[in-house]
Amino acid sequence: MSTEYYQQVIGRIYNEILPFHGKGKVADYIPALAEVNPMQFGIAVESLGGGTAMRGDAATCFSIQSISKVFTFAMVMSRVGEDIWKAVGREPSGNPFNSLVQLEHEKGIPRNPFINAGALVVTDRLMELYPRPKEAILDFVRSLCGNDDIYYDHQVAQSERDHADRNMALAHFIKSFGNIHNEVDALIDVYCHQCAISMNCVDLARSFLFLANRGVNPADGKRILTMSQAKRLGAIMATCGFYDESGDFAFRVGLPGKSGVGGGIVAYLPEKLSVAVWGPELNAYGNSLMGIEALERFTTDISSSIF
Amino acid sequence: MSTEYYQQVIGRIYNEILPFHGKGKVADYIPALAEVNPMQFGIAVESLGGGTAMRGDAATCFSIQSISKVFTFAMVMSRVGEDIWKAVGREPSGNPFNSLVQLEHEKGIPRNPFINAGALVVTDRLMELYPRPKEAILDFVRSLCGNDDIYYDHQVAQSERDHADRNMALAHFIKSFGNIHNEVDALIDVYCHQCAISMNCVDLARSFLFLANRGVNPADGKRILTMSQAKRLGAIMATCGFYDESGDFAFRVGLPGKSGVGGGIVAYLPEKLSVAVWGPELNAYGNSLMGIEALERFTTDISSSIF
Amino acid sequence: MSTEYYQQVIGRIYNEILPFHGKGKVADYIPALAEVNPMQFGIAVESLGGGTAMRGDAATCFSIQSISKVFTFAMVMSRVGEDIWKAVGREPSGNPFNSLVQLEHEKGIPRNPFINAGALVVTDRLMELYPRPKEAILDFVRSLCGNDDIYYDHQVAQSERDHADRNMALAHFIKSFGNIHNEVDALIDVYCHQCAISMNCVDLARSFLFLANRGVNPADGKRILTMSQAKRLGAIMATCGFYDESGDFAFRVGLPGKSGVGGGIVAYLPEKLSVAVWGPELNAYGNSLMGIEALERFTTDISSSIF
Amino acid sequence: MSTEYYQQVIGRIYNEILPFHGKGKVADYIPALAEVNPMQFGIAVESLGGGTAMRGDAATCFSIQSISKVFTFAMVMSRVGEDIWKAVGREPSGNPFNSLVQLEHEKGIPRNPFINAGALVVTDRLMELYPRPKEAILDFVRSLCGNDDIYYDHQVAQSERDHADRNMALAHFIKSFGNIHNEVDALIDVYCHQCAISMNCVDLARSFLFLANRGVNPADGKRILTMSQAKRLGAIMATCGFYDESGDFAFRVGLPGKSGVGGGIVAYLPEKLSVAVWGPELNAYGNSLMGIEALERFTTDISSSIF
Repeated sequence: MSTEYYQQVIGRIYNEILPFHGKGKVADYIPALAEVNPMQFGIAVESLGGGTAMRGDAATCFSIQSISKVFTFAMVMSRVGEDIWKAVGREPSGNPFNSLVQLEHEKGIPRNPFINAGALVVTDRLMELYPRPKEAILDFVRSLCGNDDIYYDHQVAQSERDHADRNMALAHFIKSFGNIHNEVDALIDVYCHQCAISMNCVDLARSFLFLANRGVNPADGKRILTMSQAKRLGAIMATCGFYDESGDFAFRVGLPGKSGVGGGIVAYLPEKLSVAVWGPELNAYGNSLMGIEALERFTTDISSSIF
Repeated sequence: MSTEYYQQVIGRIYNEILPFHGKGKVADYIPALAEVNPMQFGIAVESLGGGTAMRGDAATCFSIQSISKVFTFAMVMSRVGEDIWKAVGREPSGNPFNSLVQLEHEKGIPRNPFINAGALVVTDRLMELYPRPKEAILDFVRSLCGNDDIYYDHQVAQSERDHADRNMALAHFIKSFGNIHNEVDALIDVYCHQCAISMNCVDLARSFLFLANRGVNPADGKRILTMSQAKRLGAIMATCGFYDESGDFAFRVGLPGKSGVGGGIVAYLPEKLSVAVWGPELNAYGNSLMGIEALERFTTDISSSIF
Repeated sequence: MSTEYYQQVIGRIYNEILPFHGKGKVADYIPALAEVNPMQFGIAVESLGGGTAMRGDAATCFSIQSISKVFTFAMVMSRVGEDIWKAVGREPSGNPFNSLVQLEHEKGIPRNPFINAGALVVTDRLMELYPRPKEAILDFVRSLCGNDDIYYDHQVAQSERDHADRNMALAHFIKSFGNIHNEVDALIDVYCHQCAISMNCVDLARSFLFLANRGVNPADGKRILTMSQAKRLGAIMATCGFYDESGDFAFRVGLPGKSGVGGGIVAYLPEKLSVAVWGPELNAYGNSLMGIEALERFTTDISSSIF
Repeated sequence: MSTEYYQQVIGRIYNEILPFHGKGKVADYIPALAEVNPMQFGIAVESLGGGTAMRGDAATCFSIQSISKVFTFAMVMSRVGEDIWKAVGREPSGNPFNSLVQLEHEKGIPRNPFINAGALVVTDRLMELYPRPKEAILDFVRSLCGNDDIYYDHQVAQSERDHADRNMALAHFIKSFGNIHNEVDALIDVYCHQCAISMNCVDLARSFLFLANRGVNPADGKRILTMSQAKRLGAIMATCGFYDESGDFAFRVGLPGKSGVGGGIVAYLPEKLSVAVWGPELNAYGNSLMGIEALERFTTDISSSIF
């Protein structure tokens, strides 16, 4: 489909979505996120044929939060291959408050790389692979979306660190099983930074295009993951990308994707396109309320999903 | 692709899979299943264009067990529509031994229709919709695959009933929350029968073709589910169809599907084909060991999955 | 101390406790209990030296419910001795909604004989020891308190049976592990009857006097349990007798005892006395609100507890 | 009873207990404990009338570990009174691996002061009450047993700190609920020191005599706790003092007490005596195997327990 077509689609959706303002709640677990103006919404579509469709606040940067888990996991997967599955699983976790029990039952092996416990393990490995992990992550993301202005929002990173007790608890707990190797303080520092990467919808859509393109960045032809790895990363996103709403997202939207509590969601249709949405108000599961509504309309309108 | 092509693919896979005999374990939770000869393996592919490819014991009947949950759910979904989600969820359950805790926390609403708890609720509703539920289920399955010889294996059904304490526990527990309406004994009778439907790989592949065909049975053009319902049923299978191995199945195979402890697995590629495999030996998660190996090779060989 | 002394003590307590009327909530899980007039309160003390002190509605019969678990356990303990610990544990269960998880983790061995799961196992064994279990239980209780008028309230028993889904779930679940041997229906029938025994405070205080007396019924000199068994039964009551409020009861009252959702509580001070209270209004843990308040005052006033 | 009598009793027990050497396993979770010579066993009895009976290695110092939780709790209880129950509960926790779930469900309020989570909260409050907490703890223990040579084993404390990931996980988790106020590093430092107090059986028996004496240290007549507080602390020990073996300890021994993974156990009989045992080899629950065997014989021989 042409960029004009997608531009029309998201224009229509944009108007339908605006009335949802006020129905969700901006993340308040760290002050830096709570301050974000909720009255914003953006959407951007990148098609593999080339071309960007965008609408609303698609050029406004926000905190990508858990979307960063896809980037760090891709970095580690491309380097250590199948060995990563000794450190982290690939099954849905089922229940938020069970994660600690599961860790205990399952000897410190987190259920999947997209729950916090799993992402901490992934970042821990990344720190062993890259001597300067924070620079490496930023370089990777910049190269994916071709935007060298991508940066860490240090205020958000600091706010995360100041409220990191849950993640520190997880990290120490996993470390007690031997599945985290670095010092917890250093790990949390990297982790809080990756969550604090600031990007806009256009950047995010571009950064996921290599997944729609079977592992190769279409902008420069560089292979990031093998075709098999790209497909498998998609499978994990489809089953585990939205916490306890993963099944519902598959049901309603039907695309592999990942959300963050900053209100962003990125998803893609293999061999076709990637799409990013952003609306700071979250639903009860911590996913962007307007974002999911918009993506449900999007796959309905274009009559395409993976199912 | 042509039937000849698929015939070649599954012929090759068949030879690669035979050495796996002996690596799994036949289900022994009921005597009637434990008696099955483990040295069997069959595979059948039905393509939407028409034509059947089959290899090995693809014409031998076996107990479909939990695959029946897809049939009963489709029957109920087509009649009650969205209201079914008041009675059952659509999220992965995460952990087998948690299902009872989840039921307690979540007020007797099972996580999804493909765990036993959820399937019991679905069958309970089916009993309210159809005055003669056992006949209705058989009629439905027969019409899907065009084979009027499909039958209940009454010996297996009886064996199931004789060992139904876990399912009776679940049913009474859910009933205590008001989410089961029929007498538990009557419900368990229907449930044990649906699990004891006897079908072969060719039957099963045909019976799932309406899902690959967006809700319409290609044999007679009859719409079973709306396109949206068909896609959504696929999404639930992709995230919840293989118990605690659902994520792994998505990762390795990448198709929506459903397994049964009788050793059968059916899956489909939307708008293309359906595929059924059968090998009685199970892996640690209760899914056919040879079946998953075969399907992983299948989607690799045909270079197609939903991801 | 003399009976007059205890009469004065409980007279004082009675007046202090009356204002608590209305602060709790009558059990409503079965209709037959919900109909009980909440505006009642009774207390009775039996001292080993002989003599009964009683106040308020101490002669009014009520449903003893879970207090019956002490009787059935004593019957089984006296016959099978240490072997009972292969079927049931003696540790606090910690958490109501965990009981099903614990059963799963711990292979169908309930944590202790005073949670429902454990009491079902005990009654199951009792049915193996006594050909006519319902008669045997009644005989045992009658002999303990010397009152041949003790009876089953059949209306309550029927109401229990009509609302037994939770207990049937537990029984089937335990049976799936092989730790229940009888038919679940027959077991639930006996169990619902034992809960429906109708007694008053004086009967109950007398029926526990053999525990205060180290295993010998002081009325007829008959040994019910060995001294060691009597002490050990006391230890289990002290740690497990009040569900999730067991620690709190030890903390506030400091006596071994057992409660029932009918609003009764019986406790005893070794070598001294037994005391029964009854107030139908329950606190959040399902124990008599006025009963616990009264017993806390009682051990404070007589300056004696086991601690 | 006279000191000579107790001397005879423990002499007999000592001989019966020696054959148990080799049946347990020295704690190995920190290197400093793993190095302890397992072939040691000591027992000491202090009676309220005065006089010390001791046998075996009763004068050899060892790491008191979790027994310290009684000391810190008594210090805090005596100062903040009933308010402590806003921060920590008094119910058995039921299950070791549930402690984290319970913390989550119960909003960071640990079940009781004798599981690690609860003891961390207690030490956190102690740090608010005493500007120099490590000195204060040592002073308190020294005054209880009248031995100014009691000291921190700094090698053990350091070893604890080097392996504190589980406790740091707990502390950060509780802090995320707001129920820990100090910096986690500072808290863990104090906590690791209190566990590393080095005492022998005679010291320990003396240090618990104030509990047997209703709150007053018999050596100097100083009231440590009110009578009610002393009794209530005993009730918590009786229900929660031995982790998942608390019910079993009540059943077999029948005294309020507290164990530590260093192999020590202290218990007391109200208004009579206190008794300390030490054997480094632990059973599966982390309690001294020889210690529990010895104490079971002790209460049997003297025909006294609280039940």
